[in-house]
Amino acid sequence: MVNAAILGFGVVGSGVAEVLTGQGDGVRKKADELIALKYILDVRQFPDSPFASCFVQDFSVIEQDPEVGVVIETIGGVGAALDFTERALKAGKSVVTSNKELVATHGPRLLQLAAEHGAVYLFEASVGGGIPILRPLSDCMAANEILEICGILNGTANYIFTRMVQDGIPFDQALKGAQANGYAEQDPTADVEGQDTCRKLCILSSIAFGWHLRPDQVPTRGITRITLADEAYAAACDRRIKLLGRAIAQPDGKVCAYVEPHFVSLQDPLAGVEDVFNAITVKGNATGDVMFYGRGAGKLPTASAVVADVIAAARQLERASYRPWAPNRPECIASLDELDSQWYVRLAKGELEGERLTIPQAQPGESGWLTPAMTRPQLEAKLAGREVLAVIRVLD
Amino acid sequence: MVNAAILGFGVVGSGVAEVLTGQGDGVRKKADELIALKYILDVRQFPDSPFASCFVQDFSVIEQDPEVGVVIETIGGVGAALDFTERALKAGKSVVTSNKELVATHGPRLLQLAAEHGAVYLFEASVGGGIPILRPLSDCMAANEILEICGILNGTANYIFTRMVQDGIPFDQALKGAQANGYAEQDPTADVEGQDTCRKLCILSSIAFGWHLRPDQVPTRGITRITLADEAYAAACDRRIKLLGRAIAQPDGKVCAYVEPHFVSLQDPLAGVEDVFNAITVKGNATGDVMFYGRGAGKLPTASAVVADVIAAARQLERASYRPWAPNRPECIASLDELDSQWYVRLAKGELEGERLTIPQAQPGESGWLTPAMTRPQLEAKLAGREVLAVIRVLD
Repeated sequence: MVNAAILGFGVVGSGVAEVLTGQGDGVRKKADELIALKYILDVRQFPDSPFASCFVQDFSVIEQDPEVGVVIETIGGVGAALDFTERALKAGKSVVTSNKELVATHGPRLLQLAAEHGAVYLFEASVGGGIPILRPLSDCMAANEILEICGILNGTANYIFTRMVQDGIPFDQALKGAQANGYAEQDPTADVEGQDTCRKLCILSSIAFGWHLRPDQVPTRGITRITLADEAYAAACDRRIKLLGRAIAQPDGKVCAYVEPHFVSLQDPLAGVEDVFNAITVKGNATGDVMFYGRGAGKLPTASAVVADVIAAARQLERASYRPWAPNRPECIASLDELDSQWYVRLAKGELEGERLTIPQAQPGESGWLTPAMTRPQLEAKLAGREVLAVIRVLD
Repeated sequence: MVNAAILGFGVVGSGVAEVLTGQGDGVRKKADELIALKYILDVRQFPDSPFASCFVQDFSVIEQDPEVGVVIETIGGVGAALDFTERALKAGKSVVTSNKELVATHGPRLLQLAAEHGAVYLFEASVGGGIPILRPLSDCMAANEILEICGILNGTANYIFTRMVQDGIPFDQALKGAQANGYAEQDPTADVEGQDTCRKLCILSSIAFGWHLRPDQVPTRGITRITLADEAYAAACDRRIKLLGRAIAQPDGKVCAYVEPHFVSLQDPLAGVEDVFNAITVKGNATGDVMFYGRGAGKLPTASAVVADVIAAARQLERASYRPWAPNRPECIASLDELDSQWYVRLAKGELEGERLTIPQAQPGESGWLTPAMTRPQLEAKLAGREVLAVIRVLD
């Protein structure tokens, strides 16, 4: 029997308790007979919870209990979550988390700590919610050289785009709808400015390429300036706008990683990913493109991914571990300024080299363009002095 | 160092040799420093192969060499492949395979043999080629109750449908094209009659539900009678025809498994899967629908999946194992006759209850229909005595 402790009884933490014990809506049986829930750490009291007897407020109770084999960190952020994760690993307890910010920022140190203390640090739920992606990327594609990762990694941003296109409502209204439906936080910054996508991309890239890519090294653009006119121009050339995180291996061994909205061809399976769904395409040198698709967030999907890691940690211990990440390699980061792409440009007036796009609702003088392939600095040189309303990269 | 032996130097076997050693087109480095290729068993001679020094013709050389830790069976079929697999496992060597017929038919016994001898039997490459699906289903979704598996599991059949729709050519011509392009065998029976899909479905179902489902227990229909008129009627109701393998958990705990062509709505991500691609949707009680997509066959994709299993077997030994499959449970197999579906029916003349579909190229008197939901026996009772040109199930 392996005893588990949950840190933080929020949406994911309470979902983990339900999936782990089989007590909850939509859960019909205990996930694994070998695992028992012993503690839940939260500053709040939950006297009416079916798990009331598990609650503690002092982490050292968990830290010092030799019966606890697995600690489940669902606090989020890099404050108490980091402190408790370090202390748990140092106490030889394996840690499972959905905390993408912590993994993206401090992953290598925590993986190293785990290895030093005979424990594992697992975080399948930190990317893609309930979609299996880190384990397949790490183990099942182990015989591949990874050439590119490209994904719709943030369900909130994708939901906003879907509502804009399907309901014809502008960004602000779509965001409000996402908040009203519980798909966006009251402070949606991390979702709409791309940081959430950036963190997940860093985790994917670190697993795929074996060295730690940090969020502050990844140029990141959000989606707050996308308008209905941009969506209409995308439709006019059989494309959809999607916020993508990409990490591309260059022939010289460097990795070009960035987060930006893109025009995506309707021929690409990523274009058909709607609402809060996520999809991650991995290109291997042997397998070609493989895509993983599903709900990227939500209480039960995320909780079930956490619990699968708890089962792996409890049953397999160090065998379940991800390979360690080498330290950050700034010399291996390719400049985004060197990446050639076609571009969509919306101009207030005048013309541009490339394919002209037309939409019935265009403002007088306004025009949309698809340029030939060039780098962003080359594009910016061409656009110098022009009244530019929008620039969006086109996925090739 | 772990020594490996490849049985059978055909398309997959030679691809495995290339990926394992890093010697071959499209492969730039050795898959894993820990693994060495020691033997290749084949009745033929390959004096000009870069692996010429590895060839042996007598399996007992491999069986009796204590240095061989992993045997890679790419012979196919259930003859010599079964004999050599049993002997390798009994000798304590782990076995990795892409042989779906052998796994679907004799999986439980071979998994059991492996467990008894401290070895593992792994077969990720037997379903979906290079798409990671068995390991994610077995491990990453371990906290889910699997409610349904539904997949496009045969690339040849899917390629034929794609050519029929995109090029407007009939089945026979599309099949000939598939053969000319190397996508179909000279004897395409297993692909177009559904047996290949059936075997893969049995493997998925056995992993998902934990007991062995046998191919002879799965009602299987192929695609040889699908016509361009059927494709046109499908398009007329915004659907595509796809050959699907489905295994559906019933509320009473039984499993309803079958292989049939289906009308699939364009809203369903499966409808957009074209050419030789495969896609497998897994519905978990917690994650909802998760989809895995990629090339379902081909030398290097399949070889890379085999080699990932070799790495897992070499590095992790028994920890990498699939959970054992319980014996076959005939009492848990739900009758397909009880499954309610809408149906597409093409009649030579007359009318039918339901939605009438029209296509410009319809023959005089001929008509297409979408019926209300009913079982196949109920449908057949309604159609008794009618001149029925086609019946295809509609995926709900």
